[in-house]
Formats: sequence, structure tokens, C-alpha cells
Amino acid sequence: MSDPRVAIVGIGVMGGSLGLALRRAGAAAGIVGFDPDPACRQTAVRMGVVDDVADTLEDAVSGADVVVIAAPVGVTAELARRALAGTGEDCLVSDIASSKAGVMGALNATERERFIGGHPICGSERGGVEHARAEMFDGATYFLTPAPETRPDLYERLHGLVTRIGARPSAIDADAHDRILALVSHLPHVIASTLIQQAASTTPGGREALRSAGPSFADLTRVAGANPPLWADILLANADAVAEAIDDHVARLSDVAHLVRSGDRAAIHDLIANAADGRARLREAPDALAEPWRVVVDMPNRPGVISQVATALGHAHVNIEDLQLRSGAGLNQGELSLVVSGERAMRTAVNCVERLGFVVRAQRIGLEG
Amino acid sequence: MSDPRVAIVGIGVMGGSLGLALRRAGAAAGIVGFDPDPACRQTAVRMGVVDDVADTLEDAVSGADVVVIAAPVGVTAELARRALAGTGEDCLVSDIASSKAGVMGALNATERERFIGGHPICGSERGGVEHARAEMFDGATYFLTPAPETRPDLYERLHGLVTRIGARPSAIDADAHDRILALVSHLPHVIASTLIQQAASTTPGGREALRSAGPSFADLTRVAGANPPLWADILLANADAVAEAIDDHVARLSDVAHLVRSGDRAAIHDLIANAADGRARLREAPDALAEPWRVVVDMPNRPGVISQVATALGHAHVNIEDLQLRSGAGLNQGELSLVVSGERAMRTAVNCVERLGFVVRAQRIGLEG
Repeated sequence: MSDPRVAIVGIGVMGGSLGLALRRAGAAAGIVGFDPDPACRQTAVRMGVVDDVADTLEDAVSGADVVVIAAPVGVTAELARRALAGTGEDCLVSDIASSKAGVMGALNATERERFIGGHPICGSERGGVEHARAEMFDGATYFLTPAPETRPDLYERLHGLVTRIGARPSAIDADAHDRILALVSHLPHVIASTLIQQAASTTPGGREALRSAGPSFADLTRVAGANPPLWADILLANADAVAEAIDDHVARLSDVAHLVRSGDRAAIHDLIANAADGRARLREAPDALAEPWRVVVDMPNRPGVISQVATALGHAHVNIEDLQLRSGAGLNQGELSLVVSGERAMRTAVNCVERLGFVVRAQRIGLEG
Repeated sequence: MSDPRVAIVGIGVMGGSLGLALRRAGAAAGIVGFDPDPACRQTAVRMGVVDDVADTLEDAVSGADVVVIAAPVGVTAELARRALAGTGEDCLVSDIASSKAGVMGALNATERERFIGGHPICGSERGGVEHARAEMFDGATYFLTPAPETRPDLYERLHGLVTRIGARPSAIDADAHDRILALVSHLPHVIASTLIQQAASTTPGGREALRSAGPSFADLTRVAGANPPLWADILLANADAVAEAIDDHVARLSDVAHLVRSGDRAAIHDLIANAADGRARLREAPDALAEPWRVVVDMPNRPGVISQVATALGHAHVNIEDLQLRSGAGLNQGELSLVVSGERAMRTAVNCVERLGFVVRAQRIGLEG
């Protein structure tokens, strides 16, 4: 399709940045914003983060091809439902909420045909549209949670839009997303705030531990205390997974306390050495110089398949640079054409897709016959 | 006294940086280094971190006015004892080990007359003399642990040397030091390595949490996996305090898990909001523009008093810019002259010293009669 008309519901630092990034890329045929705060709407127009604003959600989404709900997680599902009700059958609705199972589960199967969850792994310590920036999404992982009901053409549209704002779309199961985010984002937040609290209330000999801390403690607790109302909502929206991640962390720390008390130097050494290996893997950047491969999957043109393939590749950490649907040879038969970087990613992708039972072929781009 | 002759025992990144910082300041009448590794000794001379090296510890410390043991914590007490045995009665011996009660307790009362523990809160992720830099100590808190036996003139000498390399000396009780460091340094290390381990072993739907982590997780776990043998020793040298800090953290995290499970939004909000207050206090920099005050304490010229006064001021977070002993009016009577920044620090200092039972007077520098 040609560039979509986009509606952004909720113009804070994330919604505003989305508008700026879409404009920078020239990726939208028009951007209408809505925010319940009239002052915010004015600022958004003055800053040029949207082309226009509407006075209601329904006015903003009317005529849109893509709606993105960029609102607090607690109201996202409700706003998504209103956006779905106010738009036509070819309009995609997405969101940016920090946990996904709750939002996906709050919608029914029909609504999930046109709703695909999203969550960009980026942000700002300062909220508000005035801190929006077009570069917000550059290089960031942008999780997408397609469902069995997801329409392939709408997934293709969202994948393209996410790529054009500079982010790296990665499909993931909503429950897996929430467990992972609980561990890599929500738990560290809890730990940072807890460490600050502990340091403030530990005062041996009257000397406050907090005021004796050095720069590395300050680095480690950088996220502590960020935006209390927002973060209280984030933690509670993912309560089960957060509580489980805390429990697991507590069990692991208790093991370390035992090793320290018993003087088990070898085990402590191994814990730290294994962490060094893990840190190295954490820093592994995608190989930007790797040669591009095209992977083409023959697939039936119906819901379910796109979610299955994209999620399998996401879980295998295959980065999909480009994703296109083409019509295939037979009736209701289509082709999913993917671009991945490097032979290793190509082999992983081919294995994944074959394991799902689809016919797949791959060729180096530039060497195609 | 004139500039001291300094011996540095152990020429790694810290010992090497100490040499470079002393040379930058022109604070030593000569620096002799010793390290068990001959290649390291050669590098140290070639880099100019010391004036000369010796083949044994005893040769290095012979004739020194100040010896600093910059060796792994596990061997520090033994090396300190050898340095004390190999030096004259006017030579100060100090160290830089990460925990202090063990080292202080391993020495006897006579040895503690000339040994004052030290611990600069700075460092490098990369070890070895080749990473030494003269700026290492600039602005860093440098903990000193004087004992009841500490000779005032030797404390004065160490305070002056620490100031001249750019650090901020702060006296602290050795046990309080170890509890505080367990909390603000050792516990964060344990947490960072544990988080990496947890993220590497959590793979919902086959997707590795570790490889899905964003930049903030990478920041928070920056210290994970640093130098496994060194850190295993650091944790075990402070085992009791580290295990207690872990236990306390575990109890606090378990409370948060309970709040999350029970949906107690108000309590979660308060935890984060209190952490925000704590973070702000953490960033409080000393007021460099505050006017200088001189605080003069009448004190008997005998061991014990200097430790009492300096530690009380350290625990009250009073930063002592300058410290000098002067002879006083009466027999065995001396004066301790301190410079502090700002009226608030002056008032805190005066209160602390009066509470210890000493006569004290204060005056703005530049306005003295």
C-alpha cells in the first residue's frame, strides 16, 4: 500500500517521538494526534510532531490506516478497543505498552485480527511531548506480539513502519515477552530502588551508607526512582511475571550468601566468570556488514501463519531486515519474502521455518539468477 | 616534614596510578616500587610510575617514610607486617585493600601505631600497571581507618599525601567501612553477576532473556563479571558483611514481591518515590564554592585522640580539606587545625568535636584577626 495515514493516541514523550520519527522518514501520508490534555495537543502541533490534532479519540482515528495507542499501560486495552471500533476493517491498531499478555488477552479474537501489540525497548527518563525526539527508536529492538488471528497484510504494514522509524522489529510470544521484560527491565528497576532504600537506612556508626557511595553505585542505581506513578503501573500490569522474577532472584542471591558464608571460593569465582561470558554475549551486536540473504517461505495466505513464522524467527533471534508478502502460484497460496543478514542468520531462519513444515528457499541477494 | 620518600608494594593499576599521581603532584622525595613480577617492575620503570624498583619488598621499603601496600586483599596484612618490620619507627605504612577490619585486626597494637588502613573509592575495569593513570584518584573519596593506637603525626602525613594525589580523605571506623562497602560496592557486584546468570538461564519459548535485554540492562550490569579471581577474594575478605547485606536485600526484595502480588500500588509508588529522594541525595556534590573555615581543636598530643576526632568528622560526612597538627600552649598539649568548606560543615564539625569533650574554635579564613 502507499504510505499509511497514522493516528497517535496519547502524545507523551513516546507518542511524540513516534510522530517525529515518522515525519523524519516520510513514512506517513499524514499524522493526526489525540491527547486528553489540550495543552499537550497545542504543544504537539507547535513542535510539529503531528500534522494535526483532534479533540476526541474517535475523530483522531477516523480514516486512519494505522493507529498507535501510546498511553499508560493501564488504559491501553480500553483505548485500543475504542480505536478498533472507530476504524474500518483495513485499519491496523497497535500500542507501545510495557507488558503485552494483559492487553492481548483483554481483546477478543475478532479484535485481535487487527490489533498487534508492540513494545519499543527505548525511552526517556523525562516524560512529556517536549522531550520527544525523532532519534528515539534508532537501533532499538521493537517487540511485536502477533496473535493466531493476526492478518498477514497488517503484520507486513506494521513491520514496515517500525523499520522505517529506525527500529528493529522482533516478533515474540506475549507471555514470553512479559517474562523477559520482568527480568531484564522490571526487576532491575525494583532492585535499583531497593538498593537506594537499603543504603539510605543503613547507617553504621551514624555514617549513612548512601552518602558514602561511589560512582559505580550511582551508575547501578541510575533508574531508581524514575517516574513513580508510571513505574508503579508498569510493575502492577506485569505483576505475576515481576513477582516470579523477584522470587528467582531472591533464591539465587540466597545461594550466593551461602557460598560467601561457607567460603566457597571456587563457586564464587565461577559465578563471576560465567557472568563475564554472559556480559560478552549481551554486547554481541548484529553483524551490520554481513551479506544480505533473501529467504522465501511458501505459505497459505491466512491468519495464524504469519504469527507462527515471525514469532519462531524472533525467538531464534533472527533479525528480519525486510518482510514482504507476495501472491503465490496456487489459490490462497502466498509467499513471505524475508531479508536477513549473513549466512548464519539465513541458516537459522531456514531451519526454523522448515521445522514448522513450510517449504523455504534462500539465496544471496545480488547473486540471484 | 619535607616530602616523604614513598615505597609502593604491588605495582598493578592502583599502585601504578598512585605512583603517577604522586609524581604529578611532586609530593614524594622519591618513589621506589616492588612487585613480585619482574616484567611488571620493568614496565613500571619504563612508564615512569616509580623512580626505581627493588628486587625484594625489604629493599623497597628500606629508608621509606611512607609505604603503601597495593596488593590483593588476601596478602595485604602479611605484606604490611613485613613492611612494618623493615622500616624505622617514623615510617607510616598504609594499604588500599577493599575491606579493612580484617587487615586492622590482623595487626597487633604496636603495629597499629604506624599502620593506618586506606581504601580509595576508584578503580579500573582493566588491571595491570599499563592501565595506570595519574588522574585515578581525582575527586575520589579515600577512606582512612585510624585506630586508637594511631600516631597523630602519621595520620597528618597520610592525610596530606591523599589530598595531594587529588583524593578526598575521610576517616571511618573499620567495621562501619566494611558494612558500608558490602552494601554500596560488594552487593551491587553480586547482584550484577546474579542478574546476568538469571537472564542467561531464563529462556521462555526458547528465547534467551539475556539476548533480549536493552541498553539499560547493560548499564545496570556493567560491573558483572569483572576480574573473577580479584572479586572472589574481595567478597570473601568481607564475607560476614557481604552475607548480611545480601540477607537484608533479599528480605527487602521479598517484601516488594509481596506488594506486587497483592497489588499494593500506594506502597510500590512510595518505594519508588523514596528512591527518587535518595538518588537526589546521592548526587549531592560538596559545595566547592563554599567559603573556607578554620576549625581548631585543643587536644592532648597522644594516640587515640586523632582517630576519635577524624572518625567522628568522617561519620558526620564533614570533608576535611586540610589537616595540620601544631604544638599547643601546655605540656603535651597540641592543636589540630582543620579546614572545612562552608558554614554548615563548620557547625557540624564544631558540634561533633564539642560532643567529644574538646575545646574548639572556628573562624572564617580570610577574616582572621
